[in-house]
Amino acid sequence: MTSDQPRKITIAAIARLAGVSVPTVSRVLNGRSDVSPQTRERVEELLSRHGYRRRPPSARASSALVDLVFNDLDSPWAVEIIRGVEDVAHAAGIGTVVSAIHRRSSSARQWLHNIRVRSTEGVIFVTSTLEPPLQEELRRLRIPAVIVDPAGVPPQEAPTIGATNWMGSLRAIEYLLGLGHRRIGFIAGPPQLMCSRARLDGYRAALETAGLGVDDQLICQGNFYHEAGFAGGNHLLGLADPPTAIFASSDQMALGVYEAVRRRGLRVPDDVSVVGFDDLPEVRWCSPPLTTVRQPLAEMGMLAARTVLRLAQGERIESPRVELATELVVRDSAARWRLGSGDAPRPVRLSG
Amino acid sequence: MTSDQPRKITIAAIARLAGVSVPTVSRVLNGRSDVSPQTRERVEELLSRHGYRRRPPSARASSALVDLVFNDLDSPWAVEIIRGVEDVAHAAGIGTVVSAIHRRSSSARQWLHNIRVRSTEGVIFVTSTLEPPLQEELRRLRIPAVIVDPAGVPPQEAPTIGATNWMGSLRAIEYLLGLGHRRIGFIAGPPQLMCSRARLDGYRAALETAGLGVDDQLICQGNFYHEAGFAGGNHLLGLADPPTAIFASSDQMALGVYEAVRRRGLRVPDDVSVVGFDDLPEVRWCSPPLTTVRQPLAEMGMLAARTVLRLAQGERIESPRVELATELVVRDSAARWRLGSGDAPRPVRLSG
Repeated sequence: MTSDQPRKITIAAIARLAGVSVPTVSRVLNGRSDVSPQTRERVEELLSRHGYRRRPPSARASSALVDLVFNDLDSPWAVEIIRGVEDVAHAAGIGTVVSAIHRRSSSARQWLHNIRVRSTEGVIFVTSTLEPPLQEELRRLRIPAVIVDPAGVPPQEAPTIGATNWMGSLRAIEYLLGLGHRRIGFIAGPPQLMCSRARLDGYRAALETAGLGVDDQLICQGNFYHEAGFAGGNHLLGLADPPTAIFASSDQMALGVYEAVRRRGLRVPDDVSVVGFDDLPEVRWCSPPLTTVRQPLAEMGMLAARTVLRLAQGERIESPRVELATELVVRDSAARWRLGSGDAPRPVRLSG
Repeated sequence: MTSDQPRKITIAAIARLAGVSVPTVSRVLNGRSDVSPQTRERVEELLSRHGYRRRPPSARASSALVDLVFNDLDSPWAVEIIRGVEDVAHAAGIGTVVSAIHRRSSSARQWLHNIRVRSTEGVIFVTSTLEPPLQEELRRLRIPAVIVDPAGVPPQEAPTIGATNWMGSLRAIEYLLGLGHRRIGFIAGPPQLMCSRARLDGYRAALETAGLGVDDQLICQGNFYHEAGFAGGNHLLGLADPPTAIFASSDQMALGVYEAVRRRGLRVPDDVSVVGFDDLPEVRWCSPPLTTVRQPLAEMGMLAARTVLRLAQGERIESPRVELATELVVRDSAARWRLGSGDAPRPVRLSG
């Protein structure tokens, strides 16, 4: 048995090797505090060296739980991820504990305390960053963690499940180019997020591949929220040479652009084409239904649940970061641009 | 000590009275199957007669859980209720286990099995009906249950938390009457739900109080989903004498009406005023932002969590059904009707 190829080793064997009792090894495994630091260190070293596997969920039968942790439960896509995780966990006879932590200061600490007592199979974080002390503590408790990360932060300690942001953006722009648009506005996400960067780069790549230059005037800073889409849409439509289409890098911002278009007495897609990013459930029913890049959020939740349960059984996973494919969903918010009618005719603007 | 005024009785006292051991009483309390039916019956009778109170959550510290059960996790308002429940449970150091059960056939049975093993403080159902076998089993396990019921079903065994549907509807119509509308269309919810009935009655009551008759032509059957709002809106706008305002008894139907208005080349609120019911987060950002009757979903979740935790501590609650107040949220989708411009002028209709 080598540490490269972990095989089944029992708690009893670890206890024998460490020269301690079986309950002592259990206490270390359960992260209890009533073990001396020296003993803990020796046992942990042995557990690690021999690649000890946690008990599979089946052994704990149906009392098993998996934790799903959000920063805040106010995101319109939270329920999509919950549905995906619950689906897989339920099928495995495992309950899904949903929490929100970061908005409350003492909250992460309290949550860690709870998790120590109730023995979770693993934790799925829906967030762009995982605080190092939290990571450290979960590692100490030997609780596997997986990150569902629609924001596309680079690999962390924990395995991460994201979506193909760059490719999604590229496809959206290719689609608008295919409809004849040449001046395409872009409203970016928060610059500190990698997914914002990837979506912007996909936009640039599509334009450059098509032999078109990138006009920096047509790129607005946003933050994924409605207000930023409204402001960005207003700014772009107010340019001397406005775009004929606007690609907002979130659905919420796309709905903000809708409102900017409407307030100017213009129409989507007659006067301005709009494409979003996310495919939130409600955008099927905005007026007109939004053409958008779909992030497979429920599927990301499902894969996260499967991954954390595999880790809980001591399995190795293939890759620390998996990106699921985005997909362009064509609805009614983008229309063919009338190239015949002259050089990018300007939409009418209201005087008020 | 009488059964009218339940006081603290210990498991040990029950065991003594029943002539069994303390672990046997525990097994009965935990719903375990390894107890003879005669013993179970005797112990349950004594527990009931002496008004035995379950241990308060504080005694179980932070390993305690509360269960939040949805029919399906596809509702746009699910996350609102989850947020409310999680908020209260988290503050009490209790984890929130979220499940969806009814869509899967064997699912309720599996869920009951899980709950039996992991000892929940109580269960919050988000649904309009609670199956009698499920009710019976929870009673047997002495697990308190509360129903969050946006559908307004009449009192059941379990305490229920709803919203004031009739009053919400009345206020919406009064508001439209105040804007000068006299022909107001109504798109109803599913007829089997009490909340649909209450909203329809509120509509009628407002019109009749204002001395106006109810024109049954202006009332459409719906089902709360977008498609029904679209169909109802289409139907109403196609009438020989169409309404100048439409009150859709759900936000999703109101968005369907938006789409029907748009497809006819008309505008909200210039040509038709629209009011919804629910106040889903996204309607703040539809174009134009929707005027709607707010159901306090997060608050309903909070009250449900507080109620189930009180029941878990053996407290009596004041009323088996509580309705939280709805509230009209005025945004931009309803406008003053120009009475001066003649007798309910008809919006332009497209030929296509």
